[in-house]
Amino acid sequence: MQRALDITRSRFADWYQAVVRDADMAETSPVRGAMVIKPWGYGVWEQIQQELDRRIKATGHENCYFPIFIPLSFIAKEADHVEGFAKEMAVVTHHRLKNIDGKLQPDPDAKLEEPLVVRPTSETIIGDAFSRWIKSHRDLPLLINQWANVVRWEMRPRLFLRTTEFLWQEGHTAHASAQDAEAETMRMLEVYRSFSEDYLAMPVIAGEKPENERFPGAVATYSIEAMMQDGKALQAGTSHFLGTHFAEAQGIKFQDEAGGVSLCNTTSWGVSTRLIGGVIMTHGDDDGLRLPPAIAPRQIVVVPMLRDKPEDAEVLKYCEDLVAALGQLSAFGQKLRVLLDTKKIKSAEKRWNWVRRGAPIIIEVGPRDAAGGNITYMRRDQLRDGDKVKSLAVGRQEFVEEKAVQLLVEIQAGLYADARHRLDSNIKTGVTDWAGVEEYFSGDEDAFKGWLKVSWAKPGGAELEAVETKLKTLKLTIRNAPLQQPAAFAPCLFTGAPGVEEILIGRAY
Amino acid sequence: MQRALDITRSRFADWYQAVVRDADMAETSPVRGAMVIKPWGYGVWEQIQQELDRRIKATGHENCYFPIFIPLSFIAKEADHVEGFAKEMAVVTHHRLKNIDGKLQPDPDAKLEEPLVVRPTSETIIGDAFSRWIKSHRDLPLLINQWANVVRWEMRPRLFLRTTEFLWQEGHTAHASAQDAEAETMRMLEVYRSFSEDYLAMPVIAGEKPENERFPGAVATYSIEAMMQDGKALQAGTSHFLGTHFAEAQGIKFQDEAGGVSLCNTTSWGVSTRLIGGVIMTHGDDDGLRLPPAIAPRQIVVVPMLRDKPEDAEVLKYCEDLVAALGQLSAFGQKLRVLLDTKKIKSAEKRWNWVRRGAPIIIEVGPRDAAGGNITYMRRDQLRDGDKVKSLAVGRQEFVEEKAVQLLVEIQAGLYADARHRLDSNIKTGVTDWAGVEEYFSGDEDAFKGWLKVSWAKPGGAELEAVETKLKTLKLTIRNAPLQQPAAFAPCLFTGAPGVEEILIGRAY
Repeated sequence: MQRALDITRSRFADWYQAVVRDADMAETSPVRGAMVIKPWGYGVWEQIQQELDRRIKATGHENCYFPIFIPLSFIAKEADHVEGFAKEMAVVTHHRLKNIDGKLQPDPDAKLEEPLVVRPTSETIIGDAFSRWIKSHRDLPLLINQWANVVRWEMRPRLFLRTTEFLWQEGHTAHASAQDAEAETMRMLEVYRSFSEDYLAMPVIAGEKPENERFPGAVATYSIEAMMQDGKALQAGTSHFLGTHFAEAQGIKFQDEAGGVSLCNTTSWGVSTRLIGGVIMTHGDDDGLRLPPAIAPRQIVVVPMLRDKPEDAEVLKYCEDLVAALGQLSAFGQKLRVLLDTKKIKSAEKRWNWVRRGAPIIIEVGPRDAAGGNITYMRRDQLRDGDKVKSLAVGRQEFVEEKAVQLLVEIQAGLYADARHRLDSNIKTGVTDWAGVEEYFSGDEDAFKGWLKVSWAKPGGAELEAVETKLKTLKLTIRNAPLQQPAAFAPCLFTGAPGVEEILIGRAY
Repeated sequence: MQRALDITRSRFADWYQAVVRDADMAETSPVRGAMVIKPWGYGVWEQIQQELDRRIKATGHENCYFPIFIPLSFIAKEADHVEGFAKEMAVVTHHRLKNIDGKLQPDPDAKLEEPLVVRPTSETIIGDAFSRWIKSHRDLPLLINQWANVVRWEMRPRLFLRTTEFLWQEGHTAHASAQDAEAETMRMLEVYRSFSEDYLAMPVIAGEKPENERFPGAVATYSIEAMMQDGKALQAGTSHFLGTHFAEAQGIKFQDEAGGVSLCNTTSWGVSTRLIGGVIMTHGDDDGLRLPPAIAPRQIVVVPMLRDKPEDAEVLKYCEDLVAALGQLSAFGQKLRVLLDTKKIKSAEKRWNWVRRGAPIIIEVGPRDAAGGNITYMRRDQLRDGDKVKSLAVGRQEFVEEKAVQLLVEIQAGLYADARHRLDSNIKTGVTDWAGVEEYFSGDEDAFKGWLKVSWAKPGGAELEAVETKLKTLKLTIRNAPLQQPAAFAPCLFTGAPGVEEILIGRAY
């Protein structure tokens, strides 16, 4: 049986690397831990950006741009923040190179008085601007977003999932009250949830992170967690209620209506190119990537079957007309994105390229199709009938007028339904003691395991640390406490005390 | 007379700063030389990005993303490149901070073996990828673009015009022949020219830079040069034919059809947030910014005249309907961008805010307008009648159905025509000797001076250096040799030798 990849999901980590490579998404670079995002991978990011940007603006936020460098003293101001990030930052110490003894090196005469940190996140430098921009309650809420690159030094990088440099958006807002800031935190969590499910076809559980997993300096951190095909969790987005911590450190204050001066409550929230890793591990199959049509850079690819013969011209013309007609149609609120692949390589090679890359619909047109007014198409989500690739013939006009948009909508829905089913049927409940946890996660570490949903007493401090350590022995972490909670709880799985909350436990990226 | 600014263009440099500040475009940051781009300024950049990206893709290029860090050894490989950039780069030397004696500082144990340079431009790191991606003539041309931030240390920063960090796009392409690469260089220069003129309403002269102004490592550098309202030139975009210089340094080779191996010819080209500075200095007036409608983040702003009275609700409803109706219209290939300004400040303050920010059309609606089915509008390009602000009343329906789009198109054309006239009527020809140059540029340095178009023999090496030094005494530089050249030339202004080319001379940013 011919596969588009030489590896299957049974070796999931290697399979992931193969998909990233063979779908032409990204590659490692000469800079340790930093990736090169190739056109097909970047095209997915552009789709994510475009739609998420629309949703961020529709909820009242405006885009800005802040410096990539942060003075060291800014970072030092917020003690918790330092603890959380200090260990993984790129530090600029010189602003010039010099040829010394024939070797190019940092010029000792151009050492910076204060080192600059390459932003790992921008709370501190944006907070500094907020402290200047906000004077009165009339300036609130202040709702800002930024699309940017950030750097966090990674010792064990993995393309898209954990890279030293990555691309993201970071929202930063300031509010007159804690209540307003909390509402904003939840609003953006919901934007992430709906975006992830509607657009990425990636179902998630939204919930609150436990205390030990909070963003450094946050009062509360919320996340959306997606289940990959190996059962592991991927934290796909976070939304933080920061209370007045950053406002205090940065002096973000406002005069209220009564004339008094108060600290603002702030939030921050972000998603990154990590989402692309999530899409790959949610939808990919043993032939490579399968892209949800809403985010596919090309939703339909047309491959003309050319043979260096006179009838090629007719086939090409026929394909061009097809592409033009399809390009007039709309799906997911946008014109269809259709490509005519005219690269000078064999048609069979093209087919497999687009299978690997996960183009939702691949159309092949040969001289006989052109003469008969037909096309032959493959659905990437239902590529095979048993071992064989399933090609369907249909009239060109019928395909354009009735099939194309309907198929794309169907594929999007089908990918979502599959992933939804996987998530819903692999969250095990009813485990009430540690032995049950051990049993569920026993055996081969690479075998599929889902998550457990268990009751706990929400301990803090040293008690929570003990829980964390215990979980770690099985390579587990608490993912989040889902927003949807039952009315009553079993006793705490860890302590036997009365339960107050249900949490998800699993292995994670 | 009430002005929206407290300074006029007679003090051009201060005026520029005031516009950037009072139009809420950008501000300086705590990081020396790096700016914060505020929502209104970033909104202009988003318009620029969107349209230019469309044009870059329409000419066959795909977007990618490459690491922000470049290994020092990559920079060292291209000697000319080093010369040109080595003096102004930010250098990362450590990847961790540590609390030592109570002070946060770069951790000596986390010193990088090889320092990393924050990209000043990406020829070297992209060239490295090209050397891996290109194997055969079938892989050519390779046409890549990247939207990114870059860093060049600036000792005398000016917002948008010269900042340590700026945003740009950089195109990088590889071709099988010098001829193909040269054609690409000219194609993108033309994309820049037409974009600048059609969208920014900023007329430019496209031409070749003299040898001494070439991009480090280029065989030929072309630019578009715009004339600001103080007569100075702004280099607004560049396109470089790099020959095989970078291909040689990075090993970018391909197997041709005959089976032989050849070096690729490469190009690079870029425009940056500097364009925004150009827009300000091209179109601003003594009341602040005037934005060409094609790039205005909001083309029409509606200010409801509210008085905290019961009839406010009716005025607001009337304005909302107006905004909804206008939002259905299209201009410049896109839906109109219309804002209802509901900020809780006085209407008069709103008016002046939008005048300063240069919104093309400002509409005011009071209870009487609402009751009578009318609106009152101001054209930002023709704000005053003598000293008074010119407000025009018109029926709401008529404005929506007949006026709005027509006015925006008119304003765009009018701003372009004014700038075109300024450029065309201030390039002086007929000066044939140095005395003439001195005379033209004599007197008050801040007084308006245009450019000279003179004939020269296109000297190189030491002779060119002498010309450069001479020009420098009058703070002049050669801007470019326009693509449009006459059939015959006067003798060289500098040497008296037979002329071979006409060049533009002027003061510049």
